[in-house]
Amino acid sequence: MTTTSYTGLQSVIWHDDKLDLLDQRLLPEEIVYLPLETSEDVWEAIRHLKVRGAPAIGIAAAYGVVLGSRSAESAEEWLTAVHKAAEYLATSRPTAVNLFWALDRMKARAEAIAAEGLTLEGTKQALITEAIAIQSEDEETNRMIGEHALSLFQDDIGVLTHCNAGGLATAKYGTALAPFYLAKERGMNIRVFADETRPVLQGARLTAFELHQAGIDVTLICDNMAGHVMSKGWVNAVIVGTDRVAANGDVANKIGTYSVAVLAKAHGIPFYVACPLSTIDLNTPTGAEIPIEERNAEEITEGFGKRTAPQGVKVYNPAFDITPNEYVTAIITEKGIIEAPFDVNLKKLFE
Amino acid sequence: MTTTSYTGLQSVIWHDDKLDLLDQRLLPEEIVYLPLETSEDVWEAIRHLKVRGAPAIGIAAAYGVVLGSRSAESAEEWLTAVHKAAEYLATSRPTAVNLFWALDRMKARAEAIAAEGLTLEGTKQALITEAIAIQSEDEETNRMIGEHALSLFQDDIGVLTHCNAGGLATAKYGTALAPFYLAKERGMNIRVFADETRPVLQGARLTAFELHQAGIDVTLICDNMAGHVMSKGWVNAVIVGTDRVAANGDVANKIGTYSVAVLAKAHGIPFYVACPLSTIDLNTPTGAEIPIEERNAEEITEGFGKRTAPQGVKVYNPAFDITPNEYVTAIITEKGIIEAPFDVNLKKLFE
Repeated sequence: MTTTSYTGLQSVIWHDDKLDLLDQRLLPEEIVYLPLETSEDVWEAIRHLKVRGAPAIGIAAAYGVVLGSRSAESAEEWLTAVHKAAEYLATSRPTAVNLFWALDRMKARAEAIAAEGLTLEGTKQALITEAIAIQSEDEETNRMIGEHALSLFQDDIGVLTHCNAGGLATAKYGTALAPFYLAKERGMNIRVFADETRPVLQGARLTAFELHQAGIDVTLICDNMAGHVMSKGWVNAVIVGTDRVAANGDVANKIGTYSVAVLAKAHGIPFYVACPLSTIDLNTPTGAEIPIEERNAEEITEGFGKRTAPQGVKVYNPAFDITPNEYVTAIITEKGIIEAPFDVNLKKLFE
Repeated sequence: MTTTSYTGLQSVIWHDDKLDLLDQRLLPEEIVYLPLETSEDVWEAIRHLKVRGAPAIGIAAAYGVVLGSRSAESAEEWLTAVHKAAEYLATSRPTAVNLFWALDRMKARAEAIAAEGLTLEGTKQALITEAIAIQSEDEETNRMIGEHALSLFQDDIGVLTHCNAGGLATAKYGTALAPFYLAKERGMNIRVFADETRPVLQGARLTAFELHQAGIDVTLICDNMAGHVMSKGWVNAVIVGTDRVAANGDVANKIGTYSVAVLAKAHGIPFYVACPLSTIDLNTPTGAEIPIEERNAEEITEGFGKRTAPQGVKVYNPAFDITPNEYVTAIITEKGIIEAPFDVNLKKLFE
């Protein structure tokens, strides 16, 4: 790993040829690392949301391929085991694009390794190296996003974030939370306001948890307090992650992001979106083409083990919303900071 | 009661010389009316929040004075009992202004009745009449607020509300919810969006409950969905209640109201505040003079009976926020609709 001063928790740890995975279902109450020994263990962990966040899932799956093939007794058996493990792991969460990407990369690398005629031990070690590379590259991407984001921030400011685009979802640092970890490494003080992010409370359960755990100054608020906190002058910038950025710079992210963006604009506060290049989809012209998943009513009416709304009442529970590009001050990627006009500047990024 | 077509639940019911009180602590799961037979029963109900909402508390207390004095065997004993019951009931919630107002009114009326030289039975009946008057006047005030509010709405529109300024908190109708009950009585269809209103979820537990119960079209959303719902064009107006209106038209109301007001303005949606004249405080020049109560962290970190945020994390939990007058389209009172300039027009209302 490239830094030693990172104070965040890592969700996936490979050490001494062993895989340890933070059980995120137990957060924020308990910090438990599960030792995963087989590809079945990894499948089960992905399936049952012990690991979450697209990059973290991809990383766990890559190590799952290693675990599923390491007892092979010949090069041929090994390559068969790699493919079998990858196909098996792909069934753990059928809609996770990053999972397939990581598994495809592991399979392709295995084919290349097989052609190199290494010893069986060397072959297996080369595949471990690839899984470690996937993890390291994610860390590096996030670190670069964090560096660029931090260049927009000063010491002693307040920054509001929504949902969780943090270290727990990635190798390290996260995307939107990366600048806070880097600021901490450098002795800067940034006061983070974390929206709790109803209905599933990723802001309370994950963002507040991981920043607090890392010794970063974080204050938890309810989503409906964001405007009030801004009106008090406590927020100098907003930074969020994103699930998809359209070619025109419209941003799909966790429900509530759009409200925060409108509030930020009304208060003259810059609104930043942090994401790797892989999240920018030039094939989606605008946010209007991004479907909004609706989730079940129970997340709102009985989200935490207790019914808090009348039986039978209508509920609207969109998982995401679209923030139009005019609310976005800049999109922060590992390749730099992109400003309007987004349609032109995002395209340039891929040239 | 002046109407028979009101479909909402009543929180306080006096019938056949008996007092029934809806136990609001059990909502939205159970609808239970408690028969209250003594002033001690009423004291206990107020103290333990079985009844909530300033007008409803005042009404319950007025009947509590009746219950505490009705077994008197002489006019003198009766007057003593009235005073004793009123002083006792005043200790049930020491900060409830409306409670003291109702008790003072009952005491003053008792003095006047005593001077009239009625029979003992007539004396007791005259005090019951006063308690019924307090309840009826509140109903009439709310009905007038509802009439004025409804004059701003059309059939087949969507209206968003925050928190609960509803029938449960008052004799009937509520303030912000009054137009919805009147629309229902007249066969109009207004689609209500109810913010759940974290942290205490009055929108989910009370507003969604009472409107659903009354057969009104209500959709429950999380607070952070308001902007998204507005962006879809589903909201034609916002209406909320208020705890206090300053002389310049600044509005103190449940936390999150300010965010809704900013979002409404950004979407060109009118933002209405419904309240009786008694809520307008000309002695408070602006919202800046209204203290914002901060409540305990546990409402946010373990509000659903389960801890959902890390131990020890900082939390900011303001109970109210201030919506500056420039976000307020109109203030709707029983005396009519007040528009800007509020400093001038609110003062006129009291002349």
